[in-house]
Amino acid sequence: VPAAAVEALREAGAAVHPGPEALATAQDRLAEKTLFRELGIPTAAFATVDDQDSLNAALADVGVPAILKTRRLGYDGKGQARIDEPREAHEAFASLGSGEVPLLLEARVPFRRELSLLGVRGVDGEVRTYPLVQNEHREGILRLSLAPAAGIDAGLQAAAEALGGRLLERLDYVGVLAVELFEVDGELWANELAPRVHNSGHWTIEGAQTSQFENHLRAVLGLPLGSTAARGHAAMVNLIGDVPGRETPLGVDGAHLHLYGKTGRAGRKVGHVTVVCDDAAATAASVERLRDVLG
Amino acid sequence: VPAAAVEALREAGAAVHPGPEALATAQDRLAEKTLFRELGIPTAAFATVDDQDSLNAALADVGVPAILKTRRLGYDGKGQARIDEPREAHEAFASLGSGEVPLLLEARVPFRRELSLLGVRGVDGEVRTYPLVQNEHREGILRLSLAPAAGIDAGLQAAAEALGGRLLERLDYVGVLAVELFEVDGELWANELAPRVHNSGHWTIEGAQTSQFENHLRAVLGLPLGSTAARGHAAMVNLIGDVPGRETPLGVDGAHLHLYGKTGRAGRKVGHVTVVCDDAAATAASVERLRDVLG
Repeated sequence: VPAAAVEALREAGAAVHPGPEALATAQDRLAEKTLFRELGIPTAAFATVDDQDSLNAALADVGVPAILKTRRLGYDGKGQARIDEPREAHEAFASLGSGEVPLLLEARVPFRRELSLLGVRGVDGEVRTYPLVQNEHREGILRLSLAPAAGIDAGLQAAAEALGGRLLERLDYVGVLAVELFEVDGELWANELAPRVHNSGHWTIEGAQTSQFENHLRAVLGLPLGSTAARGHAAMVNLIGDVPGRETPLGVDGAHLHLYGKTGRAGRKVGHVTVVCDDAAATAASVERLRDVLG
Repeated sequence: VPAAAVEALREAGAAVHPGPEALATAQDRLAEKTLFRELGIPTAAFATVDDQDSLNAALADVGVPAILKTRRLGYDGKGQARIDEPREAHEAFASLGSGEVPLLLEARVPFRRELSLLGVRGVDGEVRTYPLVQNEHREGILRLSLAPAAGIDAGLQAAAEALGGRLLERLDYVGVLAVELFEVDGELWANELAPRVHNSGHWTIEGAQTSQFENHLRAVLGLPLGSTAARGHAAMVNLIGDVPGRETPLGVDGAHLHLYGKTGRAGRKVGHVTVVCDDAAATAASVERLRDVLG
């Protein structure tokens, strides 16, 4: 899809990047958090860290447990250090360059679970959002996405849509954008923005009426947006490290295999499998079976 | 899909064509009809025509209304002439070369509707079939496919699967094969074989758990076959002649647009739109709307 997408975009003479404000915001954790606050979207307590003094001030302000992060260029848990006790702060600070690059200290949020919202906005300002996705990370890397997330009442979905709509409009954004969320005491807190199609939206290829990739293209080409309704119950399992044999996952009911043509390497996303079944129990059974065959 | 498919096949060193017997059979209407008869599959009365004498004998045998066809190289209604009255036979015979190429006279079947069965067989002999598809042709060209076809009882679906299974096994076939059928008094009569993915199976891209293209690749690569279950109610509308603007069909609920990159020309298939909705009534409403916007 990506190569064809870029080709289609170039042929149409469309802009292949989101607006500069969205990009600048998502690239800087401080700008991102500040935007959430401005829009009244709950987010973890945070403070900037540039040197030893501001580290101490931030610790006093934010408290522990916390995470020290580089403000720019972090992904998949890279550029982050956990701080459970104040005495660990110095080592964390040293491991991220001792202030050579701007840092941010964030409070660790006692979340019930991680969710994400995928939204798309057209050139005419129309916004559509997909059902909330439930995500599981391990070692900072997304492992499993379930869509629609279980037990989401209409109020929570509406809150997510309102939040996503505010972000898309404020950034005057065109295309697909993902918001990583924490569910905290029945409330949604924003964690990060991803101004692009997102790993937690790969399930939409088989699990939604219109995939995130197609809707991104429709948006930037000025075409009508497609339905974001889910089709059945999807689970997306990332293939990390080893590339499985093609025959391995395909015997599992409802499984669709995507390999990225990459060489296997520890911690590397080399593909994903999306399982789609009519009901959540059948999807869960297929995910279990998938885990067995993948080892 | 086709280019990527061929590439994947070549990389895997797989055979890119069905067995020679399936190809030879499907390329010759006489071999095709003879095979149906051998397997006890009802088909229209037929007789070979090579000259004026055999034309007269065939007319006496098959009767009218009938269709005179070239035995080879016909498609989309090309190489065919209708005969409603015996006196029209000579003109039909002349229009197809007066016996220069072998011909076949077939009785016109008083069918209730046209259906097709898509089946796939793996290298291990496993057979899976899609739900029966209902097709509408105009001027010999497929216009609309509905899947699953309405009002198919379990008995008729089972009869179709039995018939498809017999053909796939008899031909020792690997990959996707389509059988064009007539429904006649609650019975299925075979009309034609297509030893390949088929236009009446394009709905499977969005309307089935596994598309005919993916299952064809799985079959020839020796991978497990995917589920052929329908997902909702699909309608596939061929775009014939003019290439519509991309924005035109995409505003219709559940519509997915496929353009083939061809230049428009009268009678040419330049793309298709597949509509998928949860229920048949919604799909029918979207097809109506599609007809309005396509004009």
